[in-house]
Amino acid sequence: MKKIHSCLVIGGDMRQIYMAEALEQAGFEVSLYGFEHLEEGNAGRSDYADYYEALKGKDAVIFPLPLSRDNVSLNAPFAGEEILLADILHAVEGGQTVFGGMFGEREKQYLKHRGILAYDYFAREELTVRNAVATAEGVLQIVIEELPITVHGSHALVTGYGRTSKTVCTLLRALGAQVTVAARKQEDLAWARVEGMQGVFYEELPACAGAFDYVVNTVPALVLGRPVLEKLKADCLLVEIASAPGGIDVKTAGACGLKIVKASSLPGKVAPKTAGKIISDTIQNVIREGDG
Amino acid sequence: MKKIHSCLVIGGDMRQIYMAEALEQAGFEVSLYGFEHLEEGNAGRSDYADYYEALKGKDAVIFPLPLSRDNVSLNAPFAGEEILLADILHAVEGGQTVFGGMFGEREKQYLKHRGILAYDYFAREELTVRNAVATAEGVLQIVIEELPITVHGSHALVTGYGRTSKTVCTLLRALGAQVTVAARKQEDLAWARVEGMQGVFYEELPACAGAFDYVVNTVPALVLGRPVLEKLKADCLLVEIASAPGGIDVKTAGACGLKIVKASSLPGKVAPKTAGKIISDTIQNVIREGDG
Amino acid sequence: MKKIHSCLVIGGDMRQIYMAEALEQAGFEVSLYGFEHLEEGNAGRSDYADYYEALKGKDAVIFPLPLSRDNVSLNAPFAGEEILLADILHAVEGGQTVFGGMFGEREKQYLKHRGILAYDYFAREELTVRNAVATAEGVLQIVIEELPITVHGSHALVTGYGRTSKTVCTLLRALGAQVTVAARKQEDLAWARVEGMQGVFYEELPACAGAFDYVVNTVPALVLGRPVLEKLKADCLLVEIASAPGGIDVKTAGACGLKIVKASSLPGKVAPKTAGKIISDTIQNVIREGDG
Amino acid sequence: MKKIHSCLVIGGDMRQIYMAEALEQAGFEVSLYGFEHLEEGNAGRSDYADYYEALKGKDAVIFPLPLSRDNVSLNAPFAGEEILLADILHAVEGGQTVFGGMFGEREKQYLKHRGILAYDYFAREELTVRNAVATAEGVLQIVIEELPITVHGSHALVTGYGRTSKTVCTLLRALGAQVTVAARKQEDLAWARVEGMQGVFYEELPACAGAFDYVVNTVPALVLGRPVLEKLKADCLLVEIASAPGGIDVKTAGACGLKIVKASSLPGKVAPKTAGKIISDTIQNVIREGDG
Repeated sequence: MKKIHSCLVIGGDMRQIYMAEALEQAGFEVSLYGFEHLEEGNAGRSDYADYYEALKGKDAVIFPLPLSRDNVSLNAPFAGEEILLADILHAVEGGQTVFGGMFGEREKQYLKHRGILAYDYFAREELTVRNAVATAEGVLQIVIEELPITVHGSHALVTGYGRTSKTVCTLLRALGAQVTVAARKQEDLAWARVEGMQGVFYEELPACAGAFDYVVNTVPALVLGRPVLEKLKADCLLVEIASAPGGIDVKTAGACGLKIVKASSLPGKVAPKTAGKIISDTIQNVIREGDG
Repeated sequence: MKKIHSCLVIGGDMRQIYMAEALEQAGFEVSLYGFEHLEEGNAGRSDYADYYEALKGKDAVIFPLPLSRDNVSLNAPFAGEEILLADILHAVEGGQTVFGGMFGEREKQYLKHRGILAYDYFAREELTVRNAVATAEGVLQIVIEELPITVHGSHALVTGYGRTSKTVCTLLRALGAQVTVAARKQEDLAWARVEGMQGVFYEELPACAGAFDYVVNTVPALVLGRPVLEKLKADCLLVEIASAPGGIDVKTAGACGLKIVKASSLPGKVAPKTAGKIISDTIQNVIREGDG
Repeated sequence: MKKIHSCLVIGGDMRQIYMAEALEQAGFEVSLYGFEHLEEGNAGRSDYADYYEALKGKDAVIFPLPLSRDNVSLNAPFAGEEILLADILHAVEGGQTVFGGMFGEREKQYLKHRGILAYDYFAREELTVRNAVATAEGVLQIVIEELPITVHGSHALVTGYGRTSKTVCTLLRALGAQVTVAARKQEDLAWARVEGMQGVFYEELPACAGAFDYVVNTVPALVLGRPVLEKLKADCLLVEIASAPGGIDVKTAGACGLKIVKASSLPGKVAPKTAGKIISDTIQNVIREGDG
Repeated sequence: MKKIHSCLVIGGDMRQIYMAEALEQAGFEVSLYGFEHLEEGNAGRSDYADYYEALKGKDAVIFPLPLSRDNVSLNAPFAGEEILLADILHAVEGGQTVFGGMFGEREKQYLKHRGILAYDYFAREELTVRNAVATAEGVLQIVIEELPITVHGSHALVTGYGRTSKTVCTLLRALGAQVTVAARKQEDLAWARVEGMQGVFYEELPACAGAFDYVVNTVPALVLGRPVLEKLKADCLLVEIASAPGGIDVKTAGACGLKIVKASSLPGKVAPKTAGKIISDTIQNVIREGDG
């Protein structure tokens, strides 16, 4: 990796603005492009005539998370104009280092083909681990807001036992909830039990579903179908935080009269400043390792 | 205390509805009055012609929390008509047992004069302790919602070290915040430190104020005046949960450009069902002790 | 209070040695007397011919905790000779400030009569609060050592809900025990429940006693008599940490074949260095307040 | 797997006795062999003339954990005679199901060759996860016992971030220690930080070693060599819980005057009853899955 000093941050939401601040504080020279509609005093800095000018001579280009929401244009909600993904990648200069979140296979191939180093910071464990905390706090906010009962003393079901699930469980228990974890593996259930929770296999859910005040799904595959849903209490809240297609049979849930709150991209919504700091730290880790 | 079986719940908000449900589940015969505007299937039950008819023959009358918000009329936001406090107390029958939250001196005297047993459930420790949990969860929701950072890793100042404060501190720490407690007594600071927090005297606050991302005030007397406020970070959030007049010098806070969120009566807003259950449990405790 | 610079530490155990070190680090000039039998490199410092010489000209005299174990001689297990309490107090010079732990009424009167300022650091809340942590860790050690089961998943009964009890409960729960608190006051039970424990009145104990793997008594008055003891499991462990006479009917416990571990003065045994640091901090607090 | 009803428990320590009790409570018919020297009322049950008679007709044979400590004889500390590993395995009847902990390659091959189903319960995740709790409590006991300070407020270094390490960290933090985790992977450090600890790479240890009051090693490969050891405080305690050869350079530690406590097989020592229950549960899981 070439020595990186100057960076262009192009596209993204408030997280990228906070990330830019954090990078500046760490000594990088940071420019912004694609934030024309942002009314926060940052606009003055994105005053390049176009992105060619903005890219010129920068050591690194930092794309948003996710890179794109439609596979066509760059994810740039505050930009004054649409920026086509193909065009902006084409405009990246040879020798520049590229960072971004959730590259598609096509983009990876294209940049590789051009000999450009590209790093997907969303693929880094230290980012996903820290993001899980922001997601879990977002879940907590939803549960406190939506339910007429305190989390303390409530009965929660959390499906799956990956990074996000573990963090959601930790926070719910920290507030005094009784948490049941549903998972596939004996080992996961053992961990859950050691942590003081109930652990059940998915097949056991229908038998105990009537006990829950809310369900948090973290599994992106159908785990909450009719056999479980029809056994839930009528006022049981469903919180879906898995990426599409999610784990809840939405149609059946609707037929059962159950309320679903879909919450995606919680870190950017709940804690954009922390989320930006996390991206900044992760990019700096990548740079340090590239130097080493 | 006379044996209590039939109760009239008169006035109050959703908490009293949930309280009524909980009392019914415990075997009491519960009637409602003053919920005509409530659209939740409960309306049908408050179909007495007037409150004289509603009161007639009941063993106990359960007033809301607080009894009144203006010292003139009963606190009955869902009632079809205003109910004057003096009138309704006058209408209570001799021999009925009265429960209510936050009786004024005048009401207490009046009922005592008439020989009517009146119990203020808000004065009971087991209610205030459990209410503190709901309040603390409400504070958590505000902090997650308002701040662009995660509670995890944030720096909080909590003033006072009474029941509510302790519970707020417990929850913030459970989520990974660094908590500083400001108090007057050496003993309180010792406890706070034993619990893993910083403990400072109020006079020491100006020297460390610059470190906090938010401040939660639980003290109903001025503890956050100019010397502290002018040292806080510009984006430090102030959360006021003490009863009037609160502990924050609002004018100076405004002049310093600091945002204040005032949050009162959190249990009824955040967790009406739990709050109702708590009142129900407390009333049953009072009855049990009265029997004993 | 006069300005204090030079101190004589006279009598006591390892705590006083660690306390002396901490005071030296804080800038005081510290001398030792009564540690002749201690083989830890500190002996060289207690080389006064007698205690008159040791006391001469010191600003403060620091007695041990407790001052005496028999009301006759000073508590000085490492001293080469017995030091009579009456004699040593008589030898204190007018104008010296005296510190000690657990003064008896007679000693207080005597020193007051002579116009000597005497402070009982054991009466200070910040000391007892912090000592409770050391005591609770000692209880943990006993329970881990004595029981054939893990604390995790075990069922504990803790009697009383004062400082020490609360801390014992916190640690047991932190390790995953199911804790039941027995107390007299409704408020204490409410707190215990809010903290996630069971709360029962003493009268309810016989009905649930069969569930416990161990009992920790913190109450210095009989609360565990025959009605409870005879309902405990045969291998239930009793840990007595209250001061005499304790709360366990020892005779009945013996008749029931129950094992009792009596554990007193745990802070000095489990964590003498921390305990010494706590005394040092407390004495410095007293001095600071005396200056103010 | 054949239906299992009758089991022979042969060899092992108190864990196997408690395991036998737990299996009996679950409905199995359990016989013991190899506990002749045990004075706990269980001896009467191991009254077979020899192990051929003991094995005869049993559905399953349960060997100890570990199977052997010397690869020659069965691990049977309470047995009246030495039982050679080769002989006892030879004596197992065709059609019997075999359970044991830590089979060697030779034993596995031999049983496979004879067509006998053999299950190593020590290889099961749910056992190792739950054992980690007992190990961690044992570490806690050592730390409380050995150090003159409270765990609360102490500074710990834990090397590695596997199952046992995580559990040790959780318990230390639960008691209020400041914990630093040393590991190799960025992801592990991220998790450790999210949990509220410091995370450092091994190479960073020499720079921060002076801060620790004790070190718990969980890595079975040299991670604590001279560069770290010579920077530790003179009274820093080393606790070695990794299996041989461990992670501490013992010779250098000795030269530095550091105290090492070696603690192996903690679950069997600290909590034999819980450890036995865990083995019983694990064997029942294996049987259930074999049936499925």
